[in-house]
Amino acid sequence: MKLEKNMNILIVGLGLLGGSYAMALKRRGFSVHAITRSQSSIDYALEHELIDSGTTEIDAKLIGRADLVVFALYPHIFTQWLKDNGQYFKPGAVITDVTGVKSCIVYEIQEFLRKDVEFIAAHPMAGKEVYGVENADDRIFRKANYIVVPTSKNTSGAIELCRDLGKTLGFHDVSELSPEMHDEMIAYLSQLTHCIATTLMCCNDFRGLEHYTGDSFRDLTRIAKINDDMWSELFLLNREPLLREMDKFRRSFDELYTKLKNGDREGMREMMRTSTARRARFDKKEK
Amino acid sequence: MKLEKNMNILIVGLGLLGGSYAMALKRRGFSVHAITRSQSSIDYALEHELIDSGTTEIDAKLIGRADLVVFALYPHIFTQWLKDNGQYFKPGAVITDVTGVKSCIVYEIQEFLRKDVEFIAAHPMAGKEVYGVENADDRIFRKANYIVVPTSKNTSGAIELCRDLGKTLGFHDVSELSPEMHDEMIAYLSQLTHCIATTLMCCNDFRGLEHYTGDSFRDLTRIAKINDDMWSELFLLNREPLLREMDKFRRSFDELYTKLKNGDREGMREMMRTSTARRARFDKKEK
Repeated sequence: MKLEKNMNILIVGLGLLGGSYAMALKRRGFSVHAITRSQSSIDYALEHELIDSGTTEIDAKLIGRADLVVFALYPHIFTQWLKDNGQYFKPGAVITDVTGVKSCIVYEIQEFLRKDVEFIAAHPMAGKEVYGVENADDRIFRKANYIVVPTSKNTSGAIELCRDLGKTLGFHDVSELSPEMHDEMIAYLSQLTHCIATTLMCCNDFRGLEHYTGDSFRDLTRIAKINDDMWSELFLLNREPLLREMDKFRRSFDELYTKLKNGDREGMREMMRTSTARRARFDKKEK
Repeated sequence: MKLEKNMNILIVGLGLLGGSYAMALKRRGFSVHAITRSQSSIDYALEHELIDSGTTEIDAKLIGRADLVVFALYPHIFTQWLKDNGQYFKPGAVITDVTGVKSCIVYEIQEFLRKDVEFIAAHPMAGKEVYGVENADDRIFRKANYIVVPTSKNTSGAIELCRDLGKTLGFHDVSELSPEMHDEMIAYLSQLTHCIATTLMCCNDFRGLEHYTGDSFRDLTRIAKINDDMWSELFLLNREPLLREMDKFRRSFDELYTKLKNGDREGMREMMRTSTARRARFDKKEK
């Protein structure tokens, strides 16, 4: 199944990501509609031609016309929304999401969802440190990865459609992972890094440091401006994998600490060489 | 004392930083000479008009003509160089450096150095993840900070000259710190961040992660490609302040870990809000 121009697309939740999806799809000629909480987001999206129509209501007709529904909501709101309004979906509709954690929601949703619609999970690994549809920008997809997260319940047609959505949005790379692998990977690559950046800002209150800061500190703490509401929810929903990654990090950090304390220069150099070699693997993708 | 166009400048160590100093000073019309280990660096620098002359020898005449001598060497080589060749300096010469640690070298050097020359320490907080004069680029100074690190033995004239050098090189901000404050600050802002990036790469060997990496991970590990020879020396030379900063980081990280483990969402959110507020202070300087 491919995305077709005559497909009717509904986006639920017009924030930074939902808005950026709308922008990319509308630019590519799709018919895009939206349901979101605030009228001002609708007004902005209409004015900037991100959507064809939008409402703050649960509009049964609008939902019932959609062939593809993209949810860009916080996880707990997303699940509740499906429970409350699942009856309005068009038979055969494909539902996808942007949620940053998977195991804790995918199985539950696939369990309770109507059997004549299909939920295929996806994680667009793109973002900014600002929020809201006013900051929507589909260029954030260009260098980013889009991960389709199927389970054994998904059909090849829906998986293909979801991959095609990722490509259509302009993502640099589209790949597939199981929910468990996704969550382990995200615990390391994304959540642990946010824990570290947060910790780095919390552990010292040197006032006036701004004058002396180099690029390395700025880079490490760019993500320390963090949406506490969203990230605390994501951390808790992925608690076990994240605690495991935090444990691994603590052990390695303690190892470096001990080497430094003992004046073990060769041991430190060995860690640095491992670090340098592993980091080089990530270079090829940089553009 | 200001930098004057008729001053003769000698750079010892034509690597990335030494080469970038040469580039900036030559472009601004100064007479720049160099002493460095390899002839190929001299050849490159001459060919690209970064210097007026250069040699791999300890050229007593060249050293004896210099009004300002900039050392861009590893700390232990720098100190030894001064011990071996200090007799060649011109009386009244001002000596400065680019070393990333200060307490461990400044006092010692000011103690043994001839009394008719003056060492004023400086730390240009600029760099790249590549090495050598071939990568010299004076644009790295534009958004960066230059810190002059005087002691009670320094004259106001030499401090002024050193500040003027920072401005002339094109640094965004020129400031002053005591050696002790400098080392504490650098332990937190620079060395701790390098410890963290190294640890993050060492703590997990998920192969194939490149496909799933988002910007946050790339940003946090950019500096994980680390010159193990240089950084292990810098860490050991600043061992006590760095161990203190690592301790603070560990305590805060453990705090976050415990909050996550206990499901203390409000506690996590509080740390995230502190992080967000503190990080915002660093924004003003971003351009």
